[in-house]
Amino acid sequence: MRSEELGETLLPKRLALPIFASDPLSSVAYATQEILLVLTLGGLAYLHFTPWIAAAVVALMTVVVLSYRQVVHAYPSGGGSYEVVSTNLGPSAGLVVAASLLVDYVMTVAVSVASGVDNIISALPSLAEHRVLLAIGFVAILTAMNLRGVRESGRAFAAPTYLFIGGVLIMVGTGLIRYLLGDAPVAESAAYGIMPEHGDQNLTGLALLMLVLRAFSSGCTALTGVEAISNGVPAFRKPKSKNAASTMASMGIIAVVMFVGVTTLAIIAKVHITEDSCRLTGIGGDCNGFTQKTVIAQLASSVFGGDNSIGFYFIQAATALVLILAANTAFNGFPLLSSILAQHRYLPRQLHNRGDRLAFSNGILALAIVAGALLWTYKADVTSLIHLYILGVFTSFTLSQLGMVRHWNHALRTEPDPATRRRHQTARVINTLGACVTGLVLVIVLITKFTQGAWLAVLAAIVLWVMMRGIRRHYDHTAAELAVDDPRAELVPPSRVLAVVLVSTIHKPTLRALSYARAFRPHHLEALTVSVDKSETEDLQHRWQDLDVNVPLKVLASPYREITKPVVEYVKGMRRESPRDIVAVFIPEYVVGHWWENLLHNQSALWLKSRLLFTPGVMVTSVPWQLTSAAHADHPAARAPGSVRRGEPAAGRGSDTPAGRI
Amino acid sequence: MRSEELGETLLPKRLALPIFASDPLSSVAYATQEILLVLTLGGLAYLHFTPWIAAAVVALMTVVVLSYRQVVHAYPSGGGSYEVVSTNLGPSAGLVVAASLLVDYVMTVAVSVASGVDNIISALPSLAEHRVLLAIGFVAILTAMNLRGVRESGRAFAAPTYLFIGGVLIMVGTGLIRYLLGDAPVAESAAYGIMPEHGDQNLTGLALLMLVLRAFSSGCTALTGVEAISNGVPAFRKPKSKNAASTMASMGIIAVVMFVGVTTLAIIAKVHITEDSCRLTGIGGDCNGFTQKTVIAQLASSVFGGDNSIGFYFIQAATALVLILAANTAFNGFPLLSSILAQHRYLPRQLHNRGDRLAFSNGILALAIVAGALLWTYKADVTSLIHLYILGVFTSFTLSQLGMVRHWNHALRTEPDPATRRRHQTARVINTLGACVTGLVLVIVLITKFTQGAWLAVLAAIVLWVMMRGIRRHYDHTAAELAVDDPRAELVPPSRVLAVVLVSTIHKPTLRALSYARAFRPHHLEALTVSVDKSETEDLQHRWQDLDVNVPLKVLASPYREITKPVVEYVKGMRRESPRDIVAVFIPEYVVGHWWENLLHNQSALWLKSRLLFTPGVMVTSVPWQLTSAAHADHPAARAPGSVRRGEPAAGRGSDTPAGRI
Repeated sequence: MRSEELGETLLPKRLALPIFASDPLSSVAYATQEILLVLTLGGLAYLHFTPWIAAAVVALMTVVVLSYRQVVHAYPSGGGSYEVVSTNLGPSAGLVVAASLLVDYVMTVAVSVASGVDNIISALPSLAEHRVLLAIGFVAILTAMNLRGVRESGRAFAAPTYLFIGGVLIMVGTGLIRYLLGDAPVAESAAYGIMPEHGDQNLTGLALLMLVLRAFSSGCTALTGVEAISNGVPAFRKPKSKNAASTMASMGIIAVVMFVGVTTLAIIAKVHITEDSCRLTGIGGDCNGFTQKTVIAQLASSVFGGDNSIGFYFIQAATALVLILAANTAFNGFPLLSSILAQHRYLPRQLHNRGDRLAFSNGILALAIVAGALLWTYKADVTSLIHLYILGVFTSFTLSQLGMVRHWNHALRTEPDPATRRRHQTARVINTLGACVTGLVLVIVLITKFTQGAWLAVLAAIVLWVMMRGIRRHYDHTAAELAVDDPRAELVPPSRVLAVVLVSTIHKPTLRALSYARAFRPHHLEALTVSVDKSETEDLQHRWQDLDVNVPLKVLASPYREITKPVVEYVKGMRRESPRDIVAVFIPEYVVGHWWENLLHNQSALWLKSRLLFTPGVMVTSVPWQLTSAAHADHPAARAPGSVRRGEPAAGRGSDTPAGRI
Repeated sequence: MRSEELGETLLPKRLALPIFASDPLSSVAYATQEILLVLTLGGLAYLHFTPWIAAAVVALMTVVVLSYRQVVHAYPSGGGSYEVVSTNLGPSAGLVVAASLLVDYVMTVAVSVASGVDNIISALPSLAEHRVLLAIGFVAILTAMNLRGVRESGRAFAAPTYLFIGGVLIMVGTGLIRYLLGDAPVAESAAYGIMPEHGDQNLTGLALLMLVLRAFSSGCTALTGVEAISNGVPAFRKPKSKNAASTMASMGIIAVVMFVGVTTLAIIAKVHITEDSCRLTGIGGDCNGFTQKTVIAQLASSVFGGDNSIGFYFIQAATALVLILAANTAFNGFPLLSSILAQHRYLPRQLHNRGDRLAFSNGILALAIVAGALLWTYKADVTSLIHLYILGVFTSFTLSQLGMVRHWNHALRTEPDPATRRRHQTARVINTLGACVTGLVLVIVLITKFTQGAWLAVLAAIVLWVMMRGIRRHYDHTAAELAVDDPRAELVPPSRVLAVVLVSTIHKPTLRALSYARAFRPHHLEALTVSVDKSETEDLQHRWQDLDVNVPLKVLASPYREITKPVVEYVKGMRRESPRDIVAVFIPEYVVGHWWENLLHNQSALWLKSRLLFTPGVMVTSVPWQLTSAAHADHPAARAPGSVRRGEPAAGRGSDTPAGRI
């Protein structure tokens, strides 16, 4: 696909919604559950806080969505939080966001996959002991898919996401109607009692507040992925910002409805769920072997009549699928963000080459390995993984909102038109509110989660931040060194060219190198050989005379039977004698077709070249001789992962940036 | 050390003996034991065959040593069996020897280490359960030592070998004296009875013969490594052949004396040892947990008074040490043989670079990995490993003796002097005898061992043989293709040189490339850039005009945002237009000092170069720009492993053969 055809790949809203919303919506699958898990630490006593916490989450969600709609309008380029913050609060702050986003992408994969596996296990309990294996298996599959550059088609996303939304809404609807008809659904766990965690019973004052705040922080996972749309504005059809904003609004509404619905239903159905199933009473049998179903699963089974109802299996399938899709979004977002960072020289240049599959492969593999490691160490346990999750989310929320406030202040300074000024002011109010709220949540999360594992996420982000700054410094340093201050001086031509042709034996490649070197008509031309084996060398000299090319053959003695050093020394010597000349070394090489043939041929030419390149005033010319086996290797066209969401065409062949570019 | 100083590294006999004899002498440590293990399959009934089998082995040893002394005289170049056979029976036969020797080197490591561990365990029974771990540990240590290129000094070898010889002789001596004084040493196992293996009791006729023959084949392990000296003649002081031959003789005598001594003592002390300790009677307790001591250990303890006597520990230490040294000889022999094979183009050229540590590293690693795998799969069990061992030894014995017969026939055809003729004739008689005997043994070994594991060795040898022939064919094919039939034609100069300078941005490397290209005064010069980003390109064009170098800047459109393809296509186009011209592509590159810096810089220059080299009539010139960080990487001088035994000086730096050589 050519750049011109780009327009055709843009997304209509009905496709954009599922593509960008699978991540935020899927979090509905675990948000409620996480709230309950914290509250039940104190037994059943504090479950009555659930509605209030849910309400707080909804309020927060509303604020965040409203704030991000401002981002979408102000920054249609799709840089998202990273762009907003770097532009308004400076690169260092921007880098903080970038670092925490990178960490978050890893967590998105880990948490979504873990939760997906949870829901599969709820439907097929026999798989319980293979939890970790399943999780890592899914990561492997996603990795393979994305490495093969499977193009992410809107439709593939649309179906499961809409099925999930539809399914959950129907479930909630049915549940509520049954409730109103006086036939409220009852969760299988409703009968169980819960023993409070030691030290968490009859809490009062601060302790109680802390518990509630912890539950709230856990509930905030419902907000993960909300910013996704703000990164994808370029992929929308025109008017991009407007479409993106309205998509965001509908996403927000759907998310709120689903979250409220699921939570209400969970309260009605009296879902009793704990972190440690041994604190459940009345389950009978061995508590360690007992696996609790996810909240979604319990609701589905209670609403649709048992674990064998089609409805139950449908909900579980849709949930698991949408969670895996959510994980997949990270596989697209991560390489994309790294390529932007690479473009800004915070990560190695290679990662920037858009359309270059290799560039993305590195990102994909890195993501997969880290996520896999996390799933392994945390035994694919959603709750413990969640502790590492939302910190990054809220760091970027807060900073981007602050950035927006700055943005509006700046805009207002110059804006004359009162109408626009009013719009800007409202926007500023919204973002200020957003900044305060998300900032507050950030603090709460930090306090309540830090000791529970969040420290690891913080540490990772800091390490990334330091590394990226280091890389940038290196690039700047190099750029400064290569900058041209005085073109004249640089362009002063060397007085003469002294050409040297390396000869090891007399065969076609050597002769070709010789005749090519001659064709250049250098000021001085000589052949050079290194004597490793006395007789071999004498033989060579004789054959050279028979050739009677009027080019002298210089023989270098090599007591240590090595090649590189004598040659490099000799060339350096030539330079010393006439510093204003340059030395051109011609190396005959032959080119083979199959990689294994290279194994059979001595690669010392490469080594010698690399050593010569360290010598100033020397250039190295490879004169290739193509063996019949040398055939053009081919590189299948491929679409880079996530290209849809950044509204980008397919790349033709493995592309790369021009040589020598930093 | 320089080639001239080579003489000083040559070995006096007293050092040559331990260096070359550690392998053959160490086999005394297990040869007797292997004979007993087979005989005791039939209970104690057949132990009276031991002396006769030992006698046969001694006879065989004598013949082989005598025959190899002829080899030493006839082929002082140290090619050993491989050279003898290839010269006299043709390369294919030579390759058979080479293949079986390579397999043997692997087995030497496996068997020697396993036996060494056995003797350590005999002294420290508590280590019994760590057998495999210990064995692999030793292989790892040897690998590390040889990879680091620890120079193999004669002294390091001399001490343990002489201690071993001395120790065993003293043990035998003391034992015999005590026997003559009527106080015969009694092995701890003398009291045990042995139940015959089911189906192996009261054998008669063929069955009995087979058992005896199997015992004999196992005893033949005493001969492994005998040929070592014939590979090392160049390392001896002048007169090389004479010294080598006499060293061989003394080695033979010592080996025979030790073997006979140990075997006699084993008979006197009534050592009862079986493959399966559960066939022992009267041991009391659980037979599975019961580890039998090696024959050497049992003798030492019986002669020197128990498992806590210094004598016992001394013998065990010396034995274990000499066995590990024997394994080490393979670490020197294997890479050496591969480098000879590489020189003859049966293995990749790289392996030939003498003194190049990398070349040897590959060989060392290959050897270590295969040996380690064998030790792992066979649980470091000497007996089962031995089955794979001697087949190769006797293949090369037989073929080299045949080769020698041919050699003498040939010599006699031309030799006039009667005295010499007589010497040749005796030599021929000896070698004919050797050929017949070793041939016979080969057949016996094949029959008795094939099903017991020898088939694996045979298979491995065949695979190697086929592979090496394939490699040779490839090299010959390439050589033919590169051979110069008509120098004139090859040297016809191209009519013009069209120079192209690749430009991605304007920085110092670009300008240097430009001025260097100009210095060549090509017939046509232009700058070339690929437009990936429209604005970037326009910017570049403007800056180019400001430079006002009168070199046109050609811009290639790249709809797919890739570089390599458009450039390659463009260059091909130039060639099509004027086929009699050549195109010189100048690529500005900058050179960094640290490997990690390369990670930060786009290596697409390399990729582009490699693609361009596939295009006929094109040469690629790298114009380096050295960044301040670019420092000369240094390569510590190192002595290649096994250099002593091939009478070779230390290599200065990592050396390599001339570029483009096949």
